[in-house]
Amino acid sequence: VLFAVKKILTERYSKQVIAMDPTDTIVALATAQGQGALALIRVSGERSATIVQTCIAEKEKFEKAAERIVQLYTFIHPHNTRDVIDRITAIRYRAPRSYTSENMVEILCHGGDITPERILESLVDAGARYAGRGEFTKRAFLNGKTSLTKAEAVNRIIASTTAIQQQHALGHYLGGGEALVLIWDKEVRELLADIENAIEFSAEADEDRNKTAERIETRVEKLKTGIMQELKKRRYLKEVEHGIDVAIVGPVNAGKSSLFNLIMGYERSIVDTEEGTTRDFISEQRKIDGIKVRFIDTAGIRNASKCVEKKGIEKSREFIKKSRIVLWVSAANEQTTEEEKLLQTTEQQKVVGIINKIDLAHSTEKQELFCNKKIPYLEISAIKREEKERVELFIRNCIYDIYNRIEYDCVIGNKRQEKIIEEILKEVEAIKRSVNSEEIAAEHCKNIIGKIEEFTGKITTEEILNKIFDEFCIGK
Amino acid sequence: VLFAVKKILTERYSKQVIAMDPTDTIVALATAQGQGALALIRVSGERSATIVQTCIAEKEKFEKAAERIVQLYTFIHPHNTRDVIDRITAIRYRAPRSYTSENMVEILCHGGDITPERILESLVDAGARYAGRGEFTKRAFLNGKTSLTKAEAVNRIIASTTAIQQQHALGHYLGGGEALVLIWDKEVRELLADIENAIEFSAEADEDRNKTAERIETRVEKLKTGIMQELKKRRYLKEVEHGIDVAIVGPVNAGKSSLFNLIMGYERSIVDTEEGTTRDFISEQRKIDGIKVRFIDTAGIRNASKCVEKKGIEKSREFIKKSRIVLWVSAANEQTTEEEKLLQTTEQQKVVGIINKIDLAHSTEKQELFCNKKIPYLEISAIKREEKERVELFIRNCIYDIYNRIEYDCVIGNKRQEKIIEEILKEVEAIKRSVNSEEIAAEHCKNIIGKIEEFTGKITTEEILNKIFDEFCIGK
Repeated sequence: VLFAVKKILTERYSKQVIAMDPTDTIVALATAQGQGALALIRVSGERSATIVQTCIAEKEKFEKAAERIVQLYTFIHPHNTRDVIDRITAIRYRAPRSYTSENMVEILCHGGDITPERILESLVDAGARYAGRGEFTKRAFLNGKTSLTKAEAVNRIIASTTAIQQQHALGHYLGGGEALVLIWDKEVRELLADIENAIEFSAEADEDRNKTAERIETRVEKLKTGIMQELKKRRYLKEVEHGIDVAIVGPVNAGKSSLFNLIMGYERSIVDTEEGTTRDFISEQRKIDGIKVRFIDTAGIRNASKCVEKKGIEKSREFIKKSRIVLWVSAANEQTTEEEKLLQTTEQQKVVGIINKIDLAHSTEKQELFCNKKIPYLEISAIKREEKERVELFIRNCIYDIYNRIEYDCVIGNKRQEKIIEEILKEVEAIKRSVNSEEIAAEHCKNIIGKIEEFTGKITTEEILNKIFDEFCIGK
Repeated sequence: VLFAVKKILTERYSKQVIAMDPTDTIVALATAQGQGALALIRVSGERSATIVQTCIAEKEKFEKAAERIVQLYTFIHPHNTRDVIDRITAIRYRAPRSYTSENMVEILCHGGDITPERILESLVDAGARYAGRGEFTKRAFLNGKTSLTKAEAVNRIIASTTAIQQQHALGHYLGGGEALVLIWDKEVRELLADIENAIEFSAEADEDRNKTAERIETRVEKLKTGIMQELKKRRYLKEVEHGIDVAIVGPVNAGKSSLFNLIMGYERSIVDTEEGTTRDFISEQRKIDGIKVRFIDTAGIRNASKCVEKKGIEKSREFIKKSRIVLWVSAANEQTTEEEKLLQTTEQQKVVGIINKIDLAHSTEKQELFCNKKIPYLEISAIKREEKERVELFIRNCIYDIYNRIEYDCVIGNKRQEKIIEEILKEVEAIKRSVNSEEIAAEHCKNIIGKIEEFTGKITTEEILNKIFDEFCIGK
């Protein structure tokens, strides 16, 4: 086994071989700490079964236990066999058919604060040591069981606070993270070949040289577009992951606050109330199907003369700009002319219309206002509490519309990856700038190839790995 | 299967049969909520495998999966098979070889806030329902898989905050809870037979009647002693579970605060600092091997004249009374006469001696002070930081001494059980009072038998069960 591990390591680490002691057995709580019916403890390392066995009363049963079978045991203290610590179930995994590719044991014990702690202590007494952050996944990576981006995705799945993040991370975990980067790798290598050709045959006819230069330019441009696309997706994903802002805007007295109250009133799951720093807006956040949504009740827009009001309107315009969705509230019993002008100045893609006060008037004019601009709208009477369900459904659909437009296949999953991709972009731009100096362009190409190897983890150092896995939680 | 379940139910519930719908499938997160590498989800009910299967991409593999084998699957949304939610491992259990004695599936998924929630939602979409508190264990009990006191012990294991609680609960979980109660049951039935005999043969000779009365009295006395013993153990356990108080006391200027600082200084695991409500004492709590220990630095004891000081001394005496351990600090360079008097007034069983300031003097007088009273003592110089280890070991041994004196076999595990045992004690006392009226005594015996059935869960109602299991956490 040791030989095989070393071979894999040598294959993976062209620059540096990272040593692992196979007799070093690590142990950690793999489930969250706190009150729960059960808790899962992981043990990994060559000696894991031997160590666990000293803490099990039914030694023969454990010894003979088949792989991946759940069996019931009595867990005892290794030095005081009369000290029964828990009734557990344990599962044996034999290398390399385990998460870490090492021998492993998973112990399912009673939850809470005491039992898992006592079991961990016993295992450490019996010869294991407490695992560091992400050490199980780090071992899986070092043993060639997982790629670096997959390993990183595991951490992101756990740390997700929205369904979007979880889905994005899961995509990388299932292998979607590296595919595009490997295509770039291929493209850069082809580009490099072209450039090196250009250097070698620099004495050729101008026509041929121009052709090569053109081809190089096309390749560089394509690469740049692709990379920028991913960085843009990343920015969008980050923005949406952080939460969607929905601004409630419109002319004065259109019923914006009534709508806001209607939205807030119908669900108790309001997370927090945030008074605006200026007194002119109120915002509240709630989760809609796992997506954080902040509703902002803004000041009414009109051509104001008073200084205070002007500031409020300025703020409203800012929210319109920054928000992902703009709920444009319009009163059915008010004129349209000025409103049309105001609406004109708003980015219409993100606007959805609310025609309010339909209990007071019916307005085909308002319907046309939105229809002409291809803005979806809903007609309501915000003061009627029974309208809440229709409003809720309408907003939910708007959010889903955004949700569905998100491209989960973004190649960038975390800050480390983002930084490398940004560096690659800089190298690509440097290639563009050095069209007339093939030697320099070739150098930049080689830099990109190196950075891609850093991205995928083909080249790495103990230091980089420690930095990556230190962000993990214990037990992963 | 249904028939068997019903049969068990009928056997168990002589007074009331509690109906369960076998097609009702429950689901819950069984591990603690929050950040963790993994999370475990439990599904129980006749249709659990069918429901889980709709959420699994590898349907045939799952269908054919053997019992208790860990297998890897892709978890998908039941209505949108392209929506991959996680890569999971799942374990199938077939009735009655499972925790609840029903068909069960355990799903091990990635941890965190989102993934387990999405899996639970999917399973509910597929036909399961969210489990109530303790519903898995309740089903285990209703299916005859566990006794009521064992079921209650499970909850106590999880809720334990000290190793003592955990060990006591585990004892009951392993079956130690009911044994003594069943002996009482036997004794009460014998007593009842005696009493009924006495009623029947009331015309007999006085001599025989006296003999019977004597035997009844002996039986009642024995029962009372046994029950009171258990209630005393329970009180002691509760007290120790809550935490041990160690009061640092002694004459003024003996170096109590130096000792307190020495104890506090040597370990970073100080839990909380608590300023005394009066300004004359400071206490800090820390955990020693899982046991909560509160050290209290008290005011020096002497015959004070000032009012403020008197109050402080009064407080000290109170702490001596209430604390489990009294660390009596005595300075080697001070006189002994008055101290001996002070020590005389203290309950000496819980006193351990510290002879401080041995850097200043050697005092055989002080050694004799403790020796004569058979009080263990340690000679130190509290201002020397290197003494901390010896002090630590000394205190640890004192605590272990108490710890070892605890009888874990107390029959009472929680409030419900305590209440019933207290009621039984009242009935026993009522028997004692009705020596001359056998009919009344027999009635009280029957009450005890009923209460024991309530204790073991032989007689119970849906209402009582709901009350018991409502105290559980979700997923247990």
